[in-house]
Amino acid sequence: MIENNPLVRKLGAFVALSEPELSVLASLHKRRRTFVRGRDLVHQGQSDQAAYTLASGWACSYKLLEDGQKQIVDFQIPGDFLGLRSVLMHVSDHSIEPVTDIEVTEILVADLLDAFARTPRLATAVLWAASRDEAMVVEHLVDLGRRDAARRMAHFLLELGARLVIVGMGDRTGYACPLTQYHLADALGLSAVHINRVLRQLREDGMVTFRDGFVAFDDYGRLVDFAQFDPSYMDQKGPFLS
Amino acid sequence: MIENNPLVRKLGAFVALSEPELSVLASLHKRRRTFVRGRDLVHQGQSDQAAYTLASGWACSYKLLEDGQKQIVDFQIPGDFLGLRSVLMHVSDHSIEPVTDIEVTEILVADLLDAFARTPRLATAVLWAASRDEAMVVEHLVDLGRRDAARRMAHFLLELGARLVIVGMGDRTGYACPLTQYHLADALGLSAVHINRVLRQLREDGMVTFRDGFVAFDDYGRLVDFAQFDPSYMDQKGPFLS
Repeated sequence: MIENNPLVRKLGAFVALSEPELSVLASLHKRRRTFVRGRDLVHQGQSDQAAYTLASGWACSYKLLEDGQKQIVDFQIPGDFLGLRSVLMHVSDHSIEPVTDIEVTEILVADLLDAFARTPRLATAVLWAASRDEAMVVEHLVDLGRRDAARRMAHFLLELGARLVIVGMGDRTGYACPLTQYHLADALGLSAVHINRVLRQLREDGMVTFRDGFVAFDDYGRLVDFAQFDPSYMDQKGPFLS
Repeated sequence: MIENNPLVRKLGAFVALSEPELSVLASLHKRRRTFVRGRDLVHQGQSDQAAYTLASGWACSYKLLEDGQKQIVDFQIPGDFLGLRSVLMHVSDHSIEPVTDIEVTEILVADLLDAFARTPRLATAVLWAASRDEAMVVEHLVDLGRRDAARRMAHFLLELGARLVIVGMGDRTGYACPLTQYHLADALGLSAVHINRVLRQLREDGMVTFRDGFVAFDDYGRLVDFAQFDPSYMDQKGPFLS
């Protein structure tokens, strides 16, 4: 059932998709592929890259500097596009690595452009998804530029939680989370030691506990206040286009 | 002449626009407005916002935190969209402030969606422009997360230069730049004092001089090497779509 597809659920947060639109979206989803944890599926500098939608598992997009430093830009969860940003570019500006084993469906650029021609509302929905992805990167920029380590972590865990809710993988009590302290360190610009210290502080303050692959919101409201978390940038208030 | 329009020049870097496509683009450009330096034209949290294209002058997009801290996300130059990211959202996730007096043309969401329906290639070009904007925000994330102050500044000045080239406002010798040390500080996460120190260092090293409203590349090649500047993320290699 395509209605259970996480991408459909996500785009459905923006546009009420009709039957013909759903069938165009279904026709995009052809080649199913799997990638194992830790092996990049898109390489920074690669040309002729495809885009994917993530059906199951988690991934991360990152950039490597010439001197070997790594910066994780964002994590992707089911329903997210992988590589959408660079599919229209000559070369990919980033790499994508599976955080867990993942299942994806490949989307060819030609098929995407063809779908836009047949279903302009789908083009708008994809532009919305791209805008939302960018809004999250912007928040990560604010994380690095202006938030102290504890608020940065709190904001990040709340954002992930809110994203997981719309694909049915989390709620206000928490969510399963496969990220390690090294992923968190590379995303938040902190050392692994610092990550552990910050997580302990948030746990001891009774706000959130990240342990054994699960993020538990111990006091959701207080964590939101602490992080100054305003989820409006994720635009999850329901369809904009009827 | 629409061919001299900076947005047309910029989109032309991605897609070879036909006469009918140019006329759809022209029909989008109706209401011309001016805004004076320092007075926001889009407010964070605002709903029913319009998008604009910048015809002349410079602007910046920024986010304010509850505690009053400011993070500049990016600067906009002629040919750039203003507010494109949030035009499909319920509320704007950022504010936009003119750095100089500016002239813009307003684009209504309904007109944009209508243009997508009539000209799917234009939807693709707009998605490209949005992808490129996001790629630049991602680089700013890497700036803040992984580059030291001098390389951060060098990378930033090179990026602005490359962007200005495609709208005919700069070359390898340099460009006119209206930004103050306070703009640079809010964008790069440095204090104004630190900004001055870094600019002096880059000047004394013979790489770049930013003085009296002009950025002069004293040794472009060496500055590129120093900043590890690889402009491929800006995708300026010529039309992807013929």
